[in-house]
Amino acid sequence: MSWREMFGPRARTVETVFPAEKDLDRLLGTKRPLRVKFGIDLTSTSVTIGNEIPLRILARFQELGHTAVLILGDFTTLVGDPSGRDKTRPVLSPEQVEANGATWLGQIGKVLDVKRAEVRRNSEWLAKLTPAEMVRLAGQLTVAQMLERESFAKRYAEGTPIHLHEFLYCLFQGYDSVAVRSDVELGGTDQTFNLNIGRVIQKHAGMASQACVINPLLEGIDGSAKMSKSLGNAIGLDTPPKDMFGLATRVPDALVGKYFRLATDVADAEIERLLKGDVWTAKKTMAEAIVARHYGAEAGRAEREAFERVFREGELPEDIPDCPIDVAAAWSATTLVRTAFGVSGAEARRLVEQGAVTLEGARLADPLAEVKVKGGEVLRAGKRKFARLVPKR
Amino acid sequence: MSWREMFGPRARTVETVFPAEKDLDRLLGTKRPLRVKFGIDLTSTSVTIGNEIPLRILARFQELGHTAVLILGDFTTLVGDPSGRDKTRPVLSPEQVEANGATWLGQIGKVLDVKRAEVRRNSEWLAKLTPAEMVRLAGQLTVAQMLERESFAKRYAEGTPIHLHEFLYCLFQGYDSVAVRSDVELGGTDQTFNLNIGRVIQKHAGMASQACVINPLLEGIDGSAKMSKSLGNAIGLDTPPKDMFGLATRVPDALVGKYFRLATDVADAEIERLLKGDVWTAKKTMAEAIVARHYGAEAGRAEREAFERVFREGELPEDIPDCPIDVAAAWSATTLVRTAFGVSGAEARRLVEQGAVTLEGARLADPLAEVKVKGGEVLRAGKRKFARLVPKR
Repeated sequence: MSWREMFGPRARTVETVFPAEKDLDRLLGTKRPLRVKFGIDLTSTSVTIGNEIPLRILARFQELGHTAVLILGDFTTLVGDPSGRDKTRPVLSPEQVEANGATWLGQIGKVLDVKRAEVRRNSEWLAKLTPAEMVRLAGQLTVAQMLERESFAKRYAEGTPIHLHEFLYCLFQGYDSVAVRSDVELGGTDQTFNLNIGRVIQKHAGMASQACVINPLLEGIDGSAKMSKSLGNAIGLDTPPKDMFGLATRVPDALVGKYFRLATDVADAEIERLLKGDVWTAKKTMAEAIVARHYGAEAGRAEREAFERVFREGELPEDIPDCPIDVAAAWSATTLVRTAFGVSGAEARRLVEQGAVTLEGARLADPLAEVKVKGGEVLRAGKRKFARLVPKR
Repeated sequence: MSWREMFGPRARTVETVFPAEKDLDRLLGTKRPLRVKFGIDLTSTSVTIGNEIPLRILARFQELGHTAVLILGDFTTLVGDPSGRDKTRPVLSPEQVEANGATWLGQIGKVLDVKRAEVRRNSEWLAKLTPAEMVRLAGQLTVAQMLERESFAKRYAEGTPIHLHEFLYCLFQGYDSVAVRSDVELGGTDQTFNLNIGRVIQKHAGMASQACVINPLLEGIDGSAKMSKSLGNAIGLDTPPKDMFGLATRVPDALVGKYFRLATDVADAEIERLLKGDVWTAKKTMAEAIVARHYGAEAGRAEREAFERVFREGELPEDIPDCPIDVAAAWSATTLVRTAFGVSGAEARRLVEQGAVTLEGARLADPLAEVKVKGGEVLRAGKRKFARLVPKR
């Protein structure tokens, strides 16, 4: 039985297996429990549906009886970036590292059976390396090999500094594979180089080199290459269902298919069918499937219905936020919109001029004409901005 | 008083001071005893008159009241070259390292007051570096900075592997300057890059960066760039006076001036005068001065006289080696020369044909004619090859 057969629908979330698919088939054919490594970067505590892709591959390995080896990368977060240039690599205190690790493990418990996993901290072995061992480790790779890594090559060509410790960090990550004796390592396409270093270092250590299972990276909901909580374009595993649905509907049309394939369990044929039809329908089905996966089918359906209700003419959403205003003041449509929705004056005026602003369902067409407010009215701008005007106390 | 004035005639053995000569002047002006670092590579135990150049600069610093800090580079010799490609960097046992260190110190005792020097082994601090400290060290330099080093740049351009531990070794050597808090470091032009790394790492450690005093490298007696015992082109501090004189006279004409300036104390004006005259006279004076420096003026004169005696027509050197031959065999001039001096048949024949071969002062002109040998005769080929033919027992 090939890995593809064993993985079934999950196989579509794998981009490449290297050195070759047959290596993974051979390993799975040995019938012994494989040690499947997945490294976790502790600088961020928020697990996105992008991070979830390899975790679900790992969960499938668990289901097949293999050992998930989760490596908390605490060594690098404790040391940080000595050049101080990499803002994404802050130095964390041991307490922060432990807290972030706990948060990670808590979140991924929804995807993986963490109790059955082997959880390791790489400071266990990295902090104990002697200078002589580090020299030997470094001697296993050449500068040219390191500069083959796409991101290093680009920076070297551009003249952007590459600090030497960055090379060491690659070696350390590779050495983790020796320390845990991994048979398989999982990671996104951005980790291809590092996973290969692991193979080289395992070989030098006299052990069989791991097979590497690489997943595609999921773009952010804004379509940018990296999904990241800090970029504000991520859907997290802890994102509440309503926001999860709303965020998913903001994905660019061109990425709906990719989101379907990587972030839902909807069958390929059904995805194909949906992509041929109305994109907005496809998008809502995708968003519903993402919510359904994380909160259940019921929640998915409920969010879809709530979302659709907002978009039906005249019908108001259930939870319109209150906006306290001074009812005695002289308001215009423009100042009301600006105040209620925090947009600029120019943006507010544009919305009014487009006929997109209503007060209790009546269009406010003149941007500057005075508007009387008693309190309790619903102000609406465009399809999705609602505020209930309440008297300020 | 500038460093040039303080160093007097020794100043000519300095090629550059960086960052600038005024930095060394400023340091010397502080009147406190400076810590002057000189690193010793323990892979070789033979100290050449090339190695002697910085040692004599160091001795001058000692005379001026400063502290010579000799660093035995034992860490790197104990760890070696993990890639196994650098044959000049064998792994030595701790006993070999100690023995080589003792040999070095014994030999340089002729140049330097070793008892007053501070002798350190860099394993003292390097073997104790933690992985986190090494990461911080590595973070102080970039790949581009390392590849600025001429030898690395050349190898990178050629596609010759540069292993990552070579970068680490540069960092370690630089860190030595932090560990011993050096004010000044001495080294040859081939060490310019490494000495500068020391400055960078000292700065990061919050201390003043050392001034670097760079000496020219002395070519081997065969004119090749590197003088090295293993290349057979070196004059060692332990070379006996006769060989020292003989080796010095083999220096190419074009290098006589450089040997004078770097390896003797002959005054500049006298060197100029000699270089304008007969090159052979200049060469003998240079050789005499080198022997005189190491074994005294008397020894220098004696070696020169012995050497000149050989070259005077008809006069024979005092110590002609015996060459046992079968006097009953049929010899020709060619086979005699080949046997006595270990040259090829073609070379022996060429010497005979050039009229350069005599037996007891009589020229042997025919390469193939039979030559009768009784035993006890002196065979000579060219100006300097002599052998006394003795009957083989």
